[in-house]
Amino acid sequence: MASESKSATAVDHRKLARFVTAAFEKLGVPKEDAEIGGNVLVQADLRGVDTHGVIRFNPHSWYVKWLTEGSMSARPTIRTVSETASSGLLDGDRGIGMVIGHRAMELAIRKAKESGIGMVAVRNSRHYGMSAYYSMMALPHDMVGIAMTNASRQVVPTFGRKARFGTNPLCFAVPADKELPFVLDMATTTAAAGKLELAARQGKAIPLGWALDEHAAATDDPKVAQKGRRLLPLGGSREGGSHKGYGLAVVVEILCGVLTGTVTALNADQDPRGHFFGAIRIDTFRPIDEFKRDMDRLIGELKSTPPIEGQERVYVAGEIEFETAQERAEHGIPLLSSVLKGLREVGEQLGVPYDLE
Amino acid sequence: MASESKSATAVDHRKLARFVTAAFEKLGVPKEDAEIGGNVLVQADLRGVDTHGVIRFNPHSWYVKWLTEGSMSARPTIRTVSETASSGLLDGDRGIGMVIGHRAMELAIRKAKESGIGMVAVRNSRHYGMSAYYSMMALPHDMVGIAMTNASRQVVPTFGRKARFGTNPLCFAVPADKELPFVLDMATTTAAAGKLELAARQGKAIPLGWALDEHAAATDDPKVAQKGRRLLPLGGSREGGSHKGYGLAVVVEILCGVLTGTVTALNADQDPRGHFFGAIRIDTFRPIDEFKRDMDRLIGELKSTPPIEGQERVYVAGEIEFETAQERAEHGIPLLSSVLKGLREVGEQLGVPYDLE
Repeated sequence: MASESKSATAVDHRKLARFVTAAFEKLGVPKEDAEIGGNVLVQADLRGVDTHGVIRFNPHSWYVKWLTEGSMSARPTIRTVSETASSGLLDGDRGIGMVIGHRAMELAIRKAKESGIGMVAVRNSRHYGMSAYYSMMALPHDMVGIAMTNASRQVVPTFGRKARFGTNPLCFAVPADKELPFVLDMATTTAAAGKLELAARQGKAIPLGWALDEHAAATDDPKVAQKGRRLLPLGGSREGGSHKGYGLAVVVEILCGVLTGTVTALNADQDPRGHFFGAIRIDTFRPIDEFKRDMDRLIGELKSTPPIEGQERVYVAGEIEFETAQERAEHGIPLLSSVLKGLREVGEQLGVPYDLE
Repeated sequence: MASESKSATAVDHRKLARFVTAAFEKLGVPKEDAEIGGNVLVQADLRGVDTHGVIRFNPHSWYVKWLTEGSMSARPTIRTVSETASSGLLDGDRGIGMVIGHRAMELAIRKAKESGIGMVAVRNSRHYGMSAYYSMMALPHDMVGIAMTNASRQVVPTFGRKARFGTNPLCFAVPADKELPFVLDMATTTAAAGKLELAARQGKAIPLGWALDEHAAATDDPKVAQKGRRLLPLGGSREGGSHKGYGLAVVVEILCGVLTGTVTALNADQDPRGHFFGAIRIDTFRPIDEFKRDMDRLIGELKSTPPIEGQERVYVAGEIEFETAQERAEHGIPLLSSVLKGLREVGEQLGVPYDLE
């Protein structure tokens, strides 16, 4: 996801995480949970996934609003509904999705440590932010990490006029040796909803195949597309393979929604979310050093592919985000004045000293 | 996948399976394994996945050729390399991929029965035919079935000039109650290789975004595309989201190749294949009747989506294949004269009475 640097102020990521954590605490969130929430949001900003970062942390939207009005619980009772040695279902009690997601992924990793595989589904959660955070939790444990979530209805099935499901992201993280880990974090739509937001802000046209207007006709106007709330599944059209993007979105809805009882595709108020997390312990299949050596070889082979005319090189999933994270950890996260304004307002509302500019 | 009925002869599927099974036996394959091979191939033809059916069963290509020349083992020693309660790695000893896949999926289902989840990876296998066969084995056990395989290099990464990996299909099967099961069986390319074959045979142009020519330029000529062996990942172009199709193909290569030590993306001779199978026992998460009821509701919601102008209705993954299978079970599988010729030649070569016309 591209970032904007025009009229942006560079903010230190540690300061930003401290601020968000303090604000969560003022909203009644226990310290440890507040730190998780702050960390997930700031990790998104660090990696350049700006649409899932502190842009959502202001009095008028998402977490602060939901916690203030009470539709999101600051102190949920996260409980295990059922479990086996390798699987589990958690109930999130409508708490902060980031906290619930973190706990669920911890459980999946614990189960994978003991039994080789851990798969944990979650019901009654809320928006969990950036998927990559959870799947990447598996990396230090030498496991493959999997994370997915359902989302509010704004995507049409192939041939459909009406939105039936969400952008339902799918995420995999895999460790390598000297190469960067492989991290694929993808909406199952052609373009993530945040891409429309970005194009609208920049006044740019979007490609046909991204979205339909409110009458289900093709549009290249991002504002019309935002109003239409009819994104197209990955592939864009039937001939472009959109039945595959549509199918993948339904797989995510089945694992996150039908398996848990939190089906956003059937839910008019669209608030509660279901998630699905997985951890696969690599060394139960193959010695970890052999695996990592072959990951390096595979990644090297992909990166060394000669590029087509007009392109400089071939990338591997996650590479650009790692580079962005390194750059931003060093030089600060560029935040737009509108985002800073929202944070300042949060500080004033909750009595958290604002020290970001 | 569309089927051709022009100049085709309807063949009874039981007769066809008996013929293929008998031929496998003449090639030295044990009876039980021969039946599995015959069944997987004929199931593909029944479901309309003609490119993975008996079109591959002739003296000049694939299974018969490989078994005759000895590069595929008729009596492999399929052995467990490592396992835990929920995971396992099998070595296929370069046997028939269909037989190895069947055994591996059986093992995944057994593990899921005992521990909730079963994930079985396979190394040193060969082409396993239609992915849906394996994932659908989970359905009678009230499990979610997962199957994937790597494949020979014929797909370029986004921005790349050279093919680096295969069409790497990804398949999920999920049971419902009164509705048909959900079965998504998709190549991670915009179009499966078989679609080029079909277009070439029909003399039709293919959409740009399916494939590149041998100089890595866009082409709409299926024959040029077949020669180029440079299919494009799902999404077609960067702006169409092809980095997502590319990423999914790499996930399949990681689970089937890097986890097992059979990486087709790094393998010049491209013969051995790796697979990955999964089974998720639904009732360890949620009572099966509740799950199936919500599957019916979800499928009903999708099917009832009003269609866009010019389309009759919205489909759910697997629906068309189930209808085709029912139709073909009743009225026979339409086989082209070229396919029948190949089967007749197999019969003559091996001394199996040919009774299909």
